[in-house]
Amino acid sequence: MTKLERLQARLPECGDCGIITDEVNRRYFTGMKSSAGTVLVFPEESYLIIDFRYIEKARSVVKDCTVILEGRGEEKYAQINELLEKHNAKTIAIDSMTCTVSELANYRSKLNAEIPGDGRFGRIIRQLRMVKTAEETEKMIAAQRIAEQGFEFMLTYIKEGLTEREMQLTLDHFMLSHGAEALSFDTIVLSGPNTSLPHGVPSERRVQRGEFVLMDFGAVVDGYHSDMTRTVCVSEPSDKMKKVYDTVLRAQKAGLEKLRAGISGQELDAVARDIIAAEGWGECFGHSLGHGVGMEIHEMPYASPSSKELLPENSVITVEPGIYLEGEFGVRIEDFAIVKAEGCENMTLARKELICL
Amino acid sequence: MTKLERLQARLPECGDCGIITDEVNRRYFTGMKSSAGTVLVFPEESYLIIDFRYIEKARSVVKDCTVILEGRGEEKYAQINELLEKHNAKTIAIDSMTCTVSELANYRSKLNAEIPGDGRFGRIIRQLRMVKTAEETEKMIAAQRIAEQGFEFMLTYIKEGLTEREMQLTLDHFMLSHGAEALSFDTIVLSGPNTSLPHGVPSERRVQRGEFVLMDFGAVVDGYHSDMTRTVCVSEPSDKMKKVYDTVLRAQKAGLEKLRAGISGQELDAVARDIIAAEGWGECFGHSLGHGVGMEIHEMPYASPSSKELLPENSVITVEPGIYLEGEFGVRIEDFAIVKAEGCENMTLARKELICL
Repeated sequence: MTKLERLQARLPECGDCGIITDEVNRRYFTGMKSSAGTVLVFPEESYLIIDFRYIEKARSVVKDCTVILEGRGEEKYAQINELLEKHNAKTIAIDSMTCTVSELANYRSKLNAEIPGDGRFGRIIRQLRMVKTAEETEKMIAAQRIAEQGFEFMLTYIKEGLTEREMQLTLDHFMLSHGAEALSFDTIVLSGPNTSLPHGVPSERRVQRGEFVLMDFGAVVDGYHSDMTRTVCVSEPSDKMKKVYDTVLRAQKAGLEKLRAGISGQELDAVARDIIAAEGWGECFGHSLGHGVGMEIHEMPYASPSSKELLPENSVITVEPGIYLEGEFGVRIEDFAIVKAEGCENMTLARKELICL
Repeated sequence: MTKLERLQARLPECGDCGIITDEVNRRYFTGMKSSAGTVLVFPEESYLIIDFRYIEKARSVVKDCTVILEGRGEEKYAQINELLEKHNAKTIAIDSMTCTVSELANYRSKLNAEIPGDGRFGRIIRQLRMVKTAEETEKMIAAQRIAEQGFEFMLTYIKEGLTEREMQLTLDHFMLSHGAEALSFDTIVLSGPNTSLPHGVPSERRVQRGEFVLMDFGAVVDGYHSDMTRTVCVSEPSDKMKKVYDTVLRAQKAGLEKLRAGISGQELDAVARDIIAAEGWGECFGHSLGHGVGMEIHEMPYASPSSKELLPENSVITVEPGIYLEGEFGVRIEDFAIVKAEGCENMTLARKELICL
């Protein structure tokens, strides 16, 4: 079954027709990247209505739905109304998590069908996207291999005196010139006391001897993201730095150890959190353990103290505990893995024992 | 008057309270970049409710509104309800162009006020953002200077045999390592026949002698974007290439010549389009002449054949005609300028006579 067929099969739960216009979902279901275009899903058939800039590419690339050249201006709505009539569709489902209030008002005024505007269609889409095919995880593995080459390169490059921003730009340029179509997100490279900021932004601060450098980064291949974090030390760490690193690493490995289909996000989070709390640093792990990754850098499933849902087989999730000591330093270690029936397949191969440069 | 005071003054047109949650508008009105936070605007006072990750920075940076630490989970809605009561607000205005359908449903179920959900508040926000202060255009000029340094560097770097992707990455790395906080958009570098694609994506194609290289790019400084396009030739162009280049350049200069406050986007577009049409290439200029630039790369005002609105003083707009000959080559030349009462102030200093490398 194609991705669109899976969506078509579930469409009757929420309407006679589904409309998709956001970039990520459009790319997911059609396989083609574009900045515009409307996907119309009916139980029997799906369509991509797309303008002249993309029509040639769409006709050669998009196989799972009928490609239609979009008319100018308001013509698009007449085209949609024609298809609604052809398929005898009385109700339209929109993705309430990406559709804006003004888009919905526009549809309601121009399309000949009822549009409830509830959250059902969006939930179905995200449930489908959560479970990955082998083709999808292959792209994520390819992205991860690029990120790991970047990491190995950084180990030869990082030295006392470099600024966080210089290190960030070097890592970014490496990934982009080694096959990444884009960066998964704004790369984080922090040093010294800045490593205690879970959401810090690379600055002009220069790394000094005896300090940690924390790198959180990823590459994108064919729309699919990777995500990893490593914390390394320039020269020798203090005993406290070693102890914090060791605790985070044990928590991270324990999380991966317990990761399997059927565990709840909550339980998984607790496995790592308990190890950190047992050392007295429970209050210093202020974020959740992990999040799903795919065509978006944050998607379902989640592993946090409040995630009650069970992780399904073939979902992808990060395992990224951290300890952040304000004004001193922080450590985070992150891999991402495919959830399997009997455990997990870690897509991250980069070494994670403490590296001193 | 601060930006927030200007918004407060117009609030009575659409409600007792305005809610802003999207990243661009939040940054515009508070002056601080963050990935989360809610701005509440009342006629008398404004608030920023923001979580622990940003609270320290917000308290030191945000001067124009009261900063409040966001409670955990659902507490935020109680905080908002308290402020609604304090200010006796019965109706809330949302920005329908960025607020999603599910966000609106969430507000409606949790907040003690009526939320019509129409487009008035969003229109006011965009009208305010369209007219720039000197401080804003200074940031755009700073961004443009970085982009121009990048352009001058590219003139020393571009040569036969380089791929589009290599040239793109080099330009990007230059801008990012010379003060750009980000790129204005995915940089476009195209060569040879690919230059005829107005929205082409840099590929592994290698540029050859006698071909155009088209570069459309920009830098971001403190949230403000620049935007420029130049088309250069590797070695000598054909006579046809010269003639097309000359036509685009004349159209571009004529547009800038006519640009002033009070002209409509339509009229401005026609000035350039007529010159291109007079040479018989009217059908080969498939996009509009220009768009506003600011905290977003595309914002109000617009200059297209259907833009009836008049350009206000101190708005910023691009002037970017192009001629695209399918399968042969394309030329686009783009500057951006501040609209003034008696003309315009071109922020682009880069030379635009045909350069042969």
